Amino acid sequence: MITWKNLDTVDAYQELLKVARVNLAEVMSGENGAERVKKYSVPMTEGLVYNYAAKQIDDVVLAALAKLAEETELTEKFEALYNGEVVNTGEKRLVLHHMTRGQLGDAVIADGGDKRTFYTDQQKKIAVFANKVHNGEITNAAGEKFTTVVQIGIGGSDLGPRAMYLALENWAKVNNTFKMEAKFISNVDPDDAAAVLNTIDVAHSLFVLVSKSGTTLETLTNESFVKDALKNAGLDPAKHMIAVTSETSPLAKSDDYLEAFFMDDYIGGRYSSTSAVGGAVLSLAFGPEVFAQFLEGAAEADKTAKNKDLLANPAMLDALIGVYERNVLGYQNTAVLPYSQGLSRFPAHLQQLDMESNGKSVNRFGEPVDYPTGPVIFGEPGTNGQHSFYQLLHQGTDIVPLQFVGFRNNQMCRDVLIQDSTSQQKLCANVAAQIVAFACGKSDEDRNKNFEGGRPSSIIIGDQLNPKTLGALLAHFENKVMFQGFVWNINSFDQEGVQLGKVLAKRVLAHETDGALKVYSDLLNI
Amino acid sequence: MITWKNLDTVDAYQELLKVARVNLAEVMSGENGAERVKKYSVPMTEGLVYNYAAKQIDDVVLAALAKLAEETELTEKFEALYNGEVVNTGEKRLVLHHMTRGQLGDAVIADGGDKRTFYTDQQKKIAVFANKVHNGEITNAAGEKFTTVVQIGIGGSDLGPRAMYLALENWAKVNNTFKMEAKFISNVDPDDAAAVLNTIDVAHSLFVLVSKSGTTLETLTNESFVKDALKNAGLDPAKHMIAVTSETSPLAKSDDYLEAFFMDDYIGGRYSSTSAVGGAVLSLAFGPEVFAQFLEGAAEADKTAKNKDLLANPAMLDALIGVYERNVLGYQNTAVLPYSQGLSRFPAHLQQLDMESNGKSVNRFGEPVDYPTGPVIFGEPGTNGQHSFYQLLHQGTDIVPLQFVGFRNNQMCRDVLIQDSTSQQKLCANVAAQIVAFACGKSDEDRNKNFEGGRPSSIIIGDQLNPKTLGALLAHFENKVMFQGFVWNINSFDQEGVQLGKVLAKRVLAHETDGALKVYSDLLNI
Repeated sequence: MITWKNLDTVDAYQELLKVARVNLAEVMSGENGAERVKKYSVPMTEGLVYNYAAKQIDDVVLAALAKLAEETELTEKFEALYNGEVVNTGEKRLVLHHMTRGQLGDAVIADGGDKRTFYTDQQKKIAVFANKVHNGEITNAAGEKFTTVVQIGIGGSDLGPRAMYLALENWAKVNNTFKMEAKFISNVDPDDAAAVLNTIDVAHSLFVLVSKSGTTLETLTNESFVKDALKNAGLDPAKHMIAVTSETSPLAKSDDYLEAFFMDDYIGGRYSSTSAVGGAVLSLAFGPEVFAQFLEGAAEADKTAKNKDLLANPAMLDALIGVYERNVLGYQNTAVLPYSQGLSRFPAHLQQLDMESNGKSVNRFGEPVDYPTGPVIFGEPGTNGQHSFYQLLHQGTDIVPLQFVGFRNNQMCRDVLIQDSTSQQKLCANVAAQIVAFACGKSDEDRNKNFEGGRPSSIIIGDQLNPKTLGALLAHFENKVMFQGFVWNINSFDQEGVQLGKVLAKRVLAHETDGALKVYSDLLNI
Repeated sequence: MITWKNLDTVDAYQELLKVARVNLAEVMSGENGAERVKKYSVPMTEGLVYNYAAKQIDDVVLAALAKLAEETELTEKFEALYNGEVVNTGEKRLVLHHMTRGQLGDAVIADGGDKRTFYTDQQKKIAVFANKVHNGEITNAAGEKFTTVVQIGIGGSDLGPRAMYLALENWAKVNNTFKMEAKFISNVDPDDAAAVLNTIDVAHSLFVLVSKSGTTLETLTNESFVKDALKNAGLDPAKHMIAVTSETSPLAKSDDYLEAFFMDDYIGGRYSSTSAVGGAVLSLAFGPEVFAQFLEGAAEADKTAKNKDLLANPAMLDALIGVYERNVLGYQNTAVLPYSQGLSRFPAHLQQLDMESNGKSVNRFGEPVDYPTGPVIFGEPGTNGQHSFYQLLHQGTDIVPLQFVGFRNNQMCRDVLIQDSTSQQKLCANVAAQIVAFACGKSDEDRNKNFEGGRPSSIIIGDQLNPKTLGALLAHFENKVMFQGFVWNINSFDQEGVQLGKVLAKRVLAHETDGALKVYSDLLNI
């Protein structure tokens, strides 16, 4: 029987508070530093490695974290989740995104069927459809092939799939699996849809409308915008649109769509990249085989997350080091810094994944908690960030923990040799240099040029960003966020914080406002 | 005579610490709230308004901030800056970015000439060049017009110009001033350059190499990458490239470029959008007249920043409210949330502008300061953010001050009516709703659905995002950051924090490493 308790009532947490702090600049210097880098490293999957040598940890801290993992029953809670317990207590729902890419435990029967079968059936249906689009069995009314796929969705129906598309776009081009260009329309700002429509040939475009409920106002508004454009071009919208939605949504069995693919209430938007939400657009863009490889990478990472040994479970370890930084060391933010241009929007996706999951002030029973929960997440790709906000990271008054990602090889196999090194070598040299600069610093008599060091980071290193490593990377962070939610005793799978704004926006549009809201509405000419 | 002193030695700051806190949820409710929204509002320029009603201020706090502004001599320091004092004490340089768009005070003579004349001469030279490119006097070797301009630069040579380009791209298309498409190559990751080159027709592309020193390794590497591509296409790189650099740089008088335009050491990279760094690419993309309007908007905002009356100086007011939030209320971050798709990368630019300027731990004399300085800045456009990280902003355990931007009209003049409102109305309704939701909250017996409120925000409201309002918006934030640097007594115009990483990266590439750095280098196969 699992016990859910607040972090500050956990004995191991009280012990953790008393553990001596590690002086990072000191331990990362000299040969001791070299030994740490070799030692504090754990294989993930798909050749990825999570290296945490530059975190403020040592064997004593790790032992305390292992106790914390044990006492908070993290792997048991994960087991309960994938075996189909109602872990999303607020909305009284199962949490089954892992099942979109594998079966980690028991069969889960819900809504009258086996859920793994449900998800794989959708994948198969998508694969058949995508193949037909690619081989010209499904075409526009003029019998011409579709060349572009446009995802219409917002939040989890946008950020994850978009980040994954960008991460694989150039890889797919080089590896001859690039089938269709993908575009994304998300914002209710009409300029978003208008700008995307300006760049595509609507006659050869297939639109994927994504809304679990079928009622997301931004998405329905953009659908209407797109339908107008199709009609204005003399085209039948129903021949250019598919839907990804839940079986019970108004979009599910509508003649407005060529086809509908299903997700369900057990997949949160921000966890839906491996469901039909990511599956439709990614299978159309790169082919179903590439999407299958992506799922495979994620499934392998999920298996690693079952490991009860903290030091062999990179997602759990990453999670607990993050809790230590947040609750013991008192750091408020985490920066995600991928040294890979393909991951340009990966930080934006993690921002949603993490902040929407763990930005909560009440525990899973609805009682206020007395300790900090999810941090603010931000980031941009290195080396760009180095020439931007790294100044504050190196010399600012607050310490920001860093999460680097780096690959030995680039995706596009084109490079140039300048000053005896390739661009890829320069990229890798920079990330190595940054880790050490942040950790060790460098003293200088000119205090303006002084670096105190002691700024913690971890790095995930891989050979190349490809479908499998991307899947593994995504699942790693999903599982990290899940474990942190368990430690904080919060429900990481609802998002009640987005509701009030929706309610008030409706009131503004209905002109049912008073007080400050009315004056703001007037100022904005609504 | 100006006195530079640390914030904690300023009497007005000690008074500010004692001022009673404002209960935001309370004061923003009911008719009192409506009155606040009307009262706490200051016109900027170009029809923009800065409304700070939803900040934790009242007349008492404002009076204390006015005293702080006076005692720290903010407008006097600004005056010293634009009159040519060496305000960048670390690098012993003048700070003259305001002069790229106007003359606020005395003539400044440096490097043997009048600096205002120098900057306007460069603008004129760029205008002549851009017009010749547009009318076909300057073409490729085959006598064909250039259709695309590609900026090669990183940090300030990339983020600002890119954000400004994206902000005006669709406006220019609708207003028939769109001349050439612009692309940007920044990252040393070779996939960045390769991907951009894949999307353009190099034979009709003009490349703008931007590096003040002419030695930025990332930029020179990408230049070489591009030159290879031009040569492989049988083209002469020297006929496809211009340079933006300082007069003393190796790029200044090289035959490798069709033309060179100049900036100087008095313009920091992150303040260079209104110099030749932004001028070349924006004049080529939209025409010199549009760039001139952009400068005009910035110049008008600069004039407003001279106002000694705090309540009539929106940049100074914004700055001081930010200091109050950072140093008295203890908030670490600021989120920038533009409700305008055109401003999609504006937060990324502000992230550099703010964090690189004020992420410092020593004062302008090189002595450590004992108080927090620049905050972490992050943000994404609304309504996208609402479906992503707003959960944490509404219900997370830390309070994050918010900076909204909204416009009554969209840029592209295409819209759709759904459920009795346009998309633009929905967009505006959402930002109005969010401000009130954050400020007032809403209590609910179900604590999971409870919103405490008390989360402060401001909003800048305008009619439309266009060259003038964009210029005004940019200058507002530049001046805000400058004033905050003055209050914190730091040098906002150097960036020594980026140096150590560069030095270590060079060592890695030269294989002159030991300890942890060597092991990381090995792990990354360098």
